[in-house]
Amino acid sequence: MNVPATMRVSKLYGIRDVRVEDGPVPRPGPGEVLLKIASVGTCGSDVHYYLEGGIGDQIVTEPITMGHEFSAWIAGLGEGVEGLELGQLVAVEPAIPCGVCEQCRHGNPNLCPAVRFCGTPPIDGVFAEYAVMPADNCFRLPKGFTEDEGALLEPLGIGIHTVDLAHLKVGETVAVLGAGPIGLLTAAVARAAGAGAVYMTEPQADRRAFALEYCADEVFNPEDEDVVAAIMEATGGRGVDVAFEAAGAEETPDQAARVARPGGKVIVVGIPSEDHMVMTASQIRRKGLTIKLVRRMKHTYPRAILMIQNGLIDIAPLATHNFSLEQIHDAFELVAGYKDGVLRAMINIGTEDSKL
Amino acid sequence: MNVPATMRVSKLYGIRDVRVEDGPVPRPGPGEVLLKIASVGTCGSDVHYYLEGGIGDQIVTEPITMGHEFSAWIAGLGEGVEGLELGQLVAVEPAIPCGVCEQCRHGNPNLCPAVRFCGTPPIDGVFAEYAVMPADNCFRLPKGFTEDEGALLEPLGIGIHTVDLAHLKVGETVAVLGAGPIGLLTAAVARAAGAGAVYMTEPQADRRAFALEYCADEVFNPEDEDVVAAIMEATGGRGVDVAFEAAGAEETPDQAARVARPGGKVIVVGIPSEDHMVMTASQIRRKGLTIKLVRRMKHTYPRAILMIQNGLIDIAPLATHNFSLEQIHDAFELVAGYKDGVLRAMINIGTEDSKL
Amino acid sequence: MNVPATMRVSKLYGIRDVRVEDGPVPRPGPGEVLLKIASVGTCGSDVHYYLEGGIGDQIVTEPITMGHEFSAWIAGLGEGVEGLELGQLVAVEPAIPCGVCEQCRHGNPNLCPAVRFCGTPPIDGVFAEYAVMPADNCFRLPKGFTEDEGALLEPLGIGIHTVDLAHLKVGETVAVLGAGPIGLLTAAVARAAGAGAVYMTEPQADRRAFALEYCADEVFNPEDEDVVAAIMEATGGRGVDVAFEAAGAEETPDQAARVARPGGKVIVVGIPSEDHMVMTASQIRRKGLTIKLVRRMKHTYPRAILMIQNGLIDIAPLATHNFSLEQIHDAFELVAGYKDGVLRAMINIGTEDSKL
Amino acid sequence: MNVPATMRVSKLYGIRDVRVEDGPVPRPGPGEVLLKIASVGTCGSDVHYYLEGGIGDQIVTEPITMGHEFSAWIAGLGEGVEGLELGQLVAVEPAIPCGVCEQCRHGNPNLCPAVRFCGTPPIDGVFAEYAVMPADNCFRLPKGFTEDEGALLEPLGIGIHTVDLAHLKVGETVAVLGAGPIGLLTAAVARAAGAGAVYMTEPQADRRAFALEYCADEVFNPEDEDVVAAIMEATGGRGVDVAFEAAGAEETPDQAARVARPGGKVIVVGIPSEDHMVMTASQIRRKGLTIKLVRRMKHTYPRAILMIQNGLIDIAPLATHNFSLEQIHDAFELVAGYKDGVLRAMINIGTEDSKL
Repeated sequence: MNVPATMRVSKLYGIRDVRVEDGPVPRPGPGEVLLKIASVGTCGSDVHYYLEGGIGDQIVTEPITMGHEFSAWIAGLGEGVEGLELGQLVAVEPAIPCGVCEQCRHGNPNLCPAVRFCGTPPIDGVFAEYAVMPADNCFRLPKGFTEDEGALLEPLGIGIHTVDLAHLKVGETVAVLGAGPIGLLTAAVARAAGAGAVYMTEPQADRRAFALEYCADEVFNPEDEDVVAAIMEATGGRGVDVAFEAAGAEETPDQAARVARPGGKVIVVGIPSEDHMVMTASQIRRKGLTIKLVRRMKHTYPRAILMIQNGLIDIAPLATHNFSLEQIHDAFELVAGYKDGVLRAMINIGTEDSKL
Repeated sequence: MNVPATMRVSKLYGIRDVRVEDGPVPRPGPGEVLLKIASVGTCGSDVHYYLEGGIGDQIVTEPITMGHEFSAWIAGLGEGVEGLELGQLVAVEPAIPCGVCEQCRHGNPNLCPAVRFCGTPPIDGVFAEYAVMPADNCFRLPKGFTEDEGALLEPLGIGIHTVDLAHLKVGETVAVLGAGPIGLLTAAVARAAGAGAVYMTEPQADRRAFALEYCADEVFNPEDEDVVAAIMEATGGRGVDVAFEAAGAEETPDQAARVARPGGKVIVVGIPSEDHMVMTASQIRRKGLTIKLVRRMKHTYPRAILMIQNGLIDIAPLATHNFSLEQIHDAFELVAGYKDGVLRAMINIGTEDSKL
Repeated sequence: MNVPATMRVSKLYGIRDVRVEDGPVPRPGPGEVLLKIASVGTCGSDVHYYLEGGIGDQIVTEPITMGHEFSAWIAGLGEGVEGLELGQLVAVEPAIPCGVCEQCRHGNPNLCPAVRFCGTPPIDGVFAEYAVMPADNCFRLPKGFTEDEGALLEPLGIGIHTVDLAHLKVGETVAVLGAGPIGLLTAAVARAAGAGAVYMTEPQADRRAFALEYCADEVFNPEDEDVVAAIMEATGGRGVDVAFEAAGAEETPDQAARVARPGGKVIVVGIPSEDHMVMTASQIRRKGLTIKLVRRMKHTYPRAILMIQNGLIDIAPLATHNFSLEQIHDAFELVAGYKDGVLRAMINIGTEDSKL
Repeated sequence: MNVPATMRVSKLYGIRDVRVEDGPVPRPGPGEVLLKIASVGTCGSDVHYYLEGGIGDQIVTEPITMGHEFSAWIAGLGEGVEGLELGQLVAVEPAIPCGVCEQCRHGNPNLCPAVRFCGTPPIDGVFAEYAVMPADNCFRLPKGFTEDEGALLEPLGIGIHTVDLAHLKVGETVAVLGAGPIGLLTAAVARAAGAGAVYMTEPQADRRAFALEYCADEVFNPEDEDVVAAIMEATGGRGVDVAFEAAGAEETPDQAARVARPGGKVIVVGIPSEDHMVMTASQIRRKGLTIKLVRRMKHTYPRAILMIQNGLIDIAPLATHNFSLEQIHDAFELVAGYKDGVLRAMINIGTEDSKL
């Protein structure tokens, strides 16, 4: 594979100021691979950086390359790398855990306090032609996978881990509050996991329509009706076995608690805009609820690949729009404005020739 | 509802000697309902009584009415029964736990040592026009359910409980050894629960064909090949996350242990013909396996009903043959001979008029 | 046993107005027993009724007999009662679940929405000479148990259920925020369950001293120091495996979240004075915490009895003060004032002669 | 620390032929440490090699240094090692997992198929003056730990992991079949984890006496009585919540199944002498048992250290005999003969001067 010395790479210079410029192609160290980037999704956290210049205490102080939901072709092998070959299309897990702390050793790399994360300051991400990642983060995609599907394995993995935490039994009922990409994928995974009924809530009309078609039995509009009452009525007053909070709004964690049945579970995957979570104490106490907070994901790629390969879930519809790397500013403006029914705008960087 | 004083009822008099005769219609006591029987499946345990006159230490000494997989219409309400109405089609859980022992109190009625079981000596079953059961055992079927589907909820419940015990994660892989009705339903439930790949083994050709169409990705023939090697190869040498033993053969528990991955699970739902289970110690020990034995089922009917209602599973194809009560001898001869691709032969007892 | 027609019975007439008067001795119905009350603890919820006339939406509108932590002698057997004999000392579970709802059937009687609870309006409790309860609620006490120990099995049961929810592994570390009776018993049970280190927080000096003697490795004073920092330092910066919130204060749930390690658990057994629970979102999310709310208890009496019998835990020191039924007003004044190092003031009602 | 060029090291040349000779002191590579060996226990697997020249398919073909239960002082630091200092007393986990396979990543290093194990052919163990191990395998021992206690953390870890697998609730009852060192430590850990009653079985009189003193409520002799009947009677016919098989005999797994209550667990930690495990099918099926097989241990050292430090368990009594390295032949003859009440014969290698 012919690797050039320089590449096109995007940089976020400030709020709403993302530019594509020339830069050096990085070189893989031992255990790393050089990746020719194929497709990259525009995640909600990227949008936070784009619109606000940071997320909480993670502030953009230097120009940074965003992007972490991605697929790529192997373009170079660092020393000691085995099991991967040049030209292979891979999906890439963007988190790089330390590997030696208690959480890593116990099988919870998503909880590693020393994790480094692609596209989070100060580490550059992959809205660029090339990037370097550890070989262990790359998962081979079988024939038939598109580049966009490979990139969407990342948010799908969040949905899988979220449902993993629920220990859902087949035929149990769920509610998913919020029909953004993560809510939709959580609902779709819950359905694939045998959820007997899937109720959703969402204020945006196009997302409600998408949800009804894609993964939900019923979708309620919180601007029109009391969604807690609606879900309680839909379940005959019993409540759902598992309530997933995927909206990140002030009121949704408590709504989740209210629609969960006695002994049920609340799984919070939405990232609250304010740094607190409030629930009604008597609701959660009298029902003896279990509440779990989702932190990233773990051990999802091989299962995700198998699920798509065997037709258990279809993630392609989430990729609603496609842009080139040079169009990245337009892509972010679209996503930031929730315009045109956008769920994930994909930045397609590599071309067909890239595979050769 | 007009209930006659006498009814037609079948009795097993001895090996292969089942007769249909006249008998009194029973009356419901407090908390019980009179049921007009709709459809009854011919379970493998019924066949054991039919062919061998008993199962283990449960011997038929007096003529007995077999039958326990069934649907029925409510034909009479005992004192204090609420929430059921005459003419309602219901599926009926055939086990009557004591309700007060430790296991019942702890939510495990399937493990109640004092359970009484419909159609197991000395308690008569439901190959008859009428029967009496506790109202708590009856589950209302929504419109659209057929009588055969109602009856098949019982073996489906076994499949659901079997998969419950596996705590399957979405995308995990499973093997199901044996493609009889319980194996097929276990595989179909595992698929509905998001199994990433389903491998089966089965010596009978028609069942292999059915499995491939119905629920399996691959089905191996133990008479043709080493099924352990075949499953290990299909999984790239890793083994499956969960191996379900549903054949009850001498060698299948150990096969299940051999195809399970390190840290995996073996769930044994097949009832061994001999009263012991043998596994290779180093296989189960070095892989640190968890082995669970399935005893009946618990808490499955509401979930099963929801799953069928929402199209998560289709159990109708299991009802391969239909007979009237007067034809019960023919039905058992068919099932006992594994003839004609039979899975479940249904005895349809009530007529359309019964519903009025 | 000679049962009189009338008895002495206390009634709460209003705030701080509890009177002892004459009343009729109740008669046991089928499945019930008449109990000669032995010892009754003064629980924090009784104190709420005493001081405030209610708890949340449970308001005292009619004079009510409080009291639900108790032991008693069997003084009369209702129809059909087996397994209990006159004169037998028993500990009594005060909650009477419906027995037929989903939660009851699934083994979670503590979550039964239709539960009736002894000493909670409108159901009379047991600060009285006699009371009637279902026989199934009575647990025989082996020789050697004192009447006070029998009564203390109730709060001990809360501690056991609280620790059950934590799925503590032997050698794991815990924090218990709050050293009132429930906090102390939770800590003592955690210690009996093999907690490798037990850290507590408590503002009252006498309770801190008691905790240090009774169950804790270290006890921190929230009025003197930053208890979160203190626990983090004590654990070398790692945090505890399980943080139990047993104070019911505004800030303690969030403190629990802050001292839990990544992947750890927060178990909330304290009943918040205000009807909400607030936690810092980034704390609970980045650490992927599991939060469980404790509702009463289930299946604890037989284990509690065995633990005391075999010396795994000593609950006698919790009974710091003893009063007669006629002194009940004094007892509540003591407890309400947190005076004199009081933990549980026991009302001893039956005399030695009662046993005959 | 002054490290010599040569050392005394034992080698097993053949059955009952262990010799102490001179050999080179190894040098630590990157991430490794040089250890001055302090104390080493004589494990049952060592005795298998000593008496039979192998365990199953692991045959001694070349002279090998046995020994894997040990403590040591840090005598040299390889490149890049941090957090350990010369002279520090450490306990050492003898298994070296690959770190990259699925099981290692998922937090189950004990199930790593590529694990290398100290003292198992072809890897030399630590009945020697010096050895090299990865720094990550070393756990610092606080002041007050003896060298023998440090070595005994290894079998204690097996006991902890065995009890971990049982998910024991405080106050639950257990049986431990077999009172060898692993059975005793399992019972002692179960006691520390709050087991309400501990029943044991053991044919050797001195071990029965030790068990009764050390960790058991009752100990039954299988040569004198039907131990299944004895345990069932001791539990009032209910059976135990968890039955631990720690004898490795032909009949003990089935005994464990028979004494487990309905819904109970059987945990098999004994290593069967023959390579199969047989249980009565109807016993395990009708009771719906869960059976788990123990493979080594994981994540136990930090908890074990805390437990000993805080007095939750006392392992010192297991070290019944002490020998020097030159006396290793005598030590093995003692242990192999089960003579003199031996549990663990410790080989004490380093001297007080070693610490300097």
